[in-house]
This record gives sequence, C-alpha cells and structure tokens, in this order.
Amino acid sequence: MKKIYMVGLGPGKREAMTYEAVNAIRESDVIVGYDFYVKLIGDLAAGKEVFSTPMKRELERCREALEFALQGKTVAFVCSGDAGVYGMAGIMMEVAAGHPEVEIEVVCGVTAACSAAGVMGAPLIHDFAVISLSDLLTPWEKIEKRLDFAAKADFVICLYNPYSKKRTGHLARACQIMLKSKSADTKCGYVKNIGREGECHVLCTLEELRDQKLDMFTTVIVGNSETVVLNGRLVTPRGYQNK
Amino acid sequence: MKKIYMVGLGPGKREAMTYEAVNAIRESDVIVGYDFYVKLIGDLAAGKEVFSTPMKRELERCREALEFALQGKTVAFVCSGDAGVYGMAGIMMEVAAGHPEVEIEVVCGVTAACSAAGVMGAPLIHDFAVISLSDLLTPWEKIEKRLDFAAKADFVICLYNPYSKKRTGHLARACQIMLKSKSADTKCGYVKNIGREGECHVLCTLEELRDQKLDMFTTVIVGNSETVVLNGRLVTPRGYQNK
Repeated sequence: MKKIYMVGLGPGKREAMTYEAVNAIRESDVIVGYDFYVKLIGDLAAGKEVFSTPMKRELERCREALEFALQGKTVAFVCSGDAGVYGMAGIMMEVAAGHPEVEIEVVCGVTAACSAAGVMGAPLIHDFAVISLSDLLTPWEKIEKRLDFAAKADFVICLYNPYSKKRTGHLARACQIMLKSKSADTKCGYVKNIGREGECHVLCTLEELRDQKLDMFTTVIVGNSETVVLNGRLVTPRGYQNK
Repeated sequence: MKKIYMVGLGPGKREAMTYEAVNAIRESDVIVGYDFYVKLIGDLAAGKEVFSTPMKRELERCREALEFALQGKTVAFVCSGDAGVYGMAGIMMEVAAGHPEVEIEVVCGVTAACSAAGVMGAPLIHDFAVISLSDLLTPWEKIEKRLDFAAKADFVICLYNPYSKKRTGHLARACQIMLKSKSADTKCGYVKNIGREGECHVLCTLEELRDQKLDMFTTVIVGNSETVVLNGRLVTPRGYQNK
C-alpha cells in the first residue's frame, strides 16, 4: 500500500500527542519533516529512514515523501500542531494530485490555537477566527482585510506567526486595525513555547499587546467584547450564567 | 490538592485521545460529564465515582465538579472535542471564580473543526473562522453578523451545531448570508459522526449545502475562494506552488 500519514504532533511534548499519531509514526518506514519537528519525536524515529530539511523547503519535503510512498514505503510526515491548520497536509495533497493511488491520511493533533487557549484559560469558548500574520505566502492587504472584518464581527481572534525577522511591525499594525473595532482594554494574551521548555504566558490588553516584542514561537489570542480575566485566566463567557 | 481537569476527548474514538487526556482521567477520583461522553470513555471510568447528567444541565455539572474538588477529590470533567472550544472549560472557570484554591487545568483534545477537516482533506490550511449556529445562548442576529463578515473576509468557515430540532432553517439561512459574498460553487463539505460508528462525509457546493438536512452530530466546512477538490478531497491551497 502506498501511504502517507500527515501527522500532527500537537504543541511539542509527547503526552500531548494522540495515540494514533504515535501509532502512525511507529508503523511508518520513513519519517519526513522539518528538522526541528523530527527532533521533537526523538526515539520514535529510531531505526527509521529519516528525511528532514530546514525551514522553507516545503515542496522538497512533499516531493520526497511522495517518492518514498511510490516506492511502497509507509511515510509519516510530521508537523507541529495539526497538519491541517497552516500545516503541510494541503500542499502534500497538491503535490500528490497526479497519484490518486497514494493514500494520504491526516492524523490530527492539537493545533496551537487550542493549546494556547488551554494555557491561558478558556478564551475560545465562543466563535473565533484564526489568522496568520505571515505574508510570505499571502498578500498583506488580504491579512489586513481579514483582521478588520474579524474585529468588526467581534470574533475572538487567534494570531499565528505574529513575528518574523524580516517583518517586525506586523503585530503592531494588526493591533492598530483591530483597535478600530475593538476597545483598547480588550483582554488578550500570548503564549511562548507552548508545551515545551520555557513555556510562559502573559495576559494584557489590546493596547498593551500592540507594543509587545514577540518571537515566532508565540501564539496570540485577542478576546471578544465579553472576554474577562478570572483568577488570572482569560475566559470568554458563552452565556450559561444568563439562563 | 483541589484539582479539576477539563479533559477534551477529541472526536470520540480512543486512539484520537491524547496521552495526557487518558492520564488525567486515570489519576482522577471522579468523572463528571454529559452522559454520552462518559459512556465514550467506557472502561477508563471503571471503579471511579461518576456524576453524569443529560444535556443542558451544564451549570449543575460544574457546581457538582466544584463540590467534589472542594472535598479534596481530583475531578476529570470530560467534554467532546476540546474542552476550550464551545466546551465547558469557560463556564467551569466562571463557576469556580470564588475558589482560586481550586486548580483548573485544561487538557486539550482535537476539536471538531480539525477532525472534520482531516476527514475531508485539508480545508483549514489558510485563515478560518469557527461559528456555532446554535442560538440557545447567542442572539441569532450576532450569528448572522459573524457569518456575513466572515464570508466578506473570504475566510474558510467551519460551522458547529448546524442543526437542532427546534431550529430547522438555520443552515439554509446561514448559506443565504454567505452566498452574498461567496460564489454559489464554493467548495464545501460536511462530516457526520466523526471518529465514531457511522462516520461519513459529503463534499458539495455552497448552493447545494443550503438544501442539506443535517443532524446535530455534523460539522460543516465552507471553503474560501481558492478551495478546490483534488482526488475527492477538499483542499485549501496556501500558495507554496506559486513560489
């Protein structure tokens, strides 16, 4: 059978992986992924063929995974979080489009929006939008438009990729846009290194968030108009209390 | 220690649970949850005290969980998907607000947006919005506004609770609103009974989705303007091919 598992590893620590993610890796012949993620799974990759590349060589990794599968090897393509949320599941299906005989199975993991929410409290209890601030593959104007509409709709907003070396002003600009429709004291928070060494989180207001210097291992959540801080935790009510 | 774990069970099958979810249940003295979810964990609850209630008695479950924790018992409060996405983590923190000595830890699971996406392909590869069509706790006007802005922003949109017995026209109405900004042939799909017996999924256009009769165990995904169907799978490209 020609098979590629697109495996979401979750935030990073082993215990946050699902049983089926671990099983998919165990039953695979080859592990494919970005260096950092292959290191994360450590001993699970022991004795297996490994193809890992540095960042930004996504197409190369997919073509290689396809090649292994066409040779009859079972492949585990590992991604952080969930392979289906800004992950490699989509591009893998595009690359393999001419080979319907290759089965591609997505093995879900916990995506950063959920794991960040869990660390901070329960901010995603109501409708939310997930937006990446990376303009490597998306025009910045489109990102601005989505931030604007999401803020107008009073969504809780989760931001992926709030920072990169080349683009230091994106978070501040994003906050400016959201501040047009969300109040300056909207409750927000961010988490660095979720589920990994050095995990830490900070709660702040939207105005304060604008001036934060974050790194690329950070996930940001901006509350809706009802989000509150309770015992140091970010919580979006859903309305049960009112019933 | 006074502790409550808010445990996300994922879509339903045991293998889709995380190791830490299973561990949290194992080390708890009491299991609290909606009947159906308590049944899902089956043997994991064996020998433990169990407090389960039918649907719509959320506050009662939270108060009971708090009571157990105050007695010094470790509680696993089980939810489907992720306890932090339309789950009970928020209301539990509200109910326990007067008791900061009770530690509430969210143990994340795979939420339905991700597991539905994985079944259908890779539709959530780009920015997306998650909206519940349940107006039990949210004014319908607010839901309409969010649908409208999310469609205008060209988000991929994931719909939770597309149907209830009392509200049979909500999905059709939601599609009408999205059709103002999204084309009639926007690629969509829905999954019933994710990760459980009877799992099945259908891909269709937004116009076709409008006329579907779904049940409450269904999760819907509406693509963005670039979402395509490749080898029978719903895929939202992110732009790697263009580079």
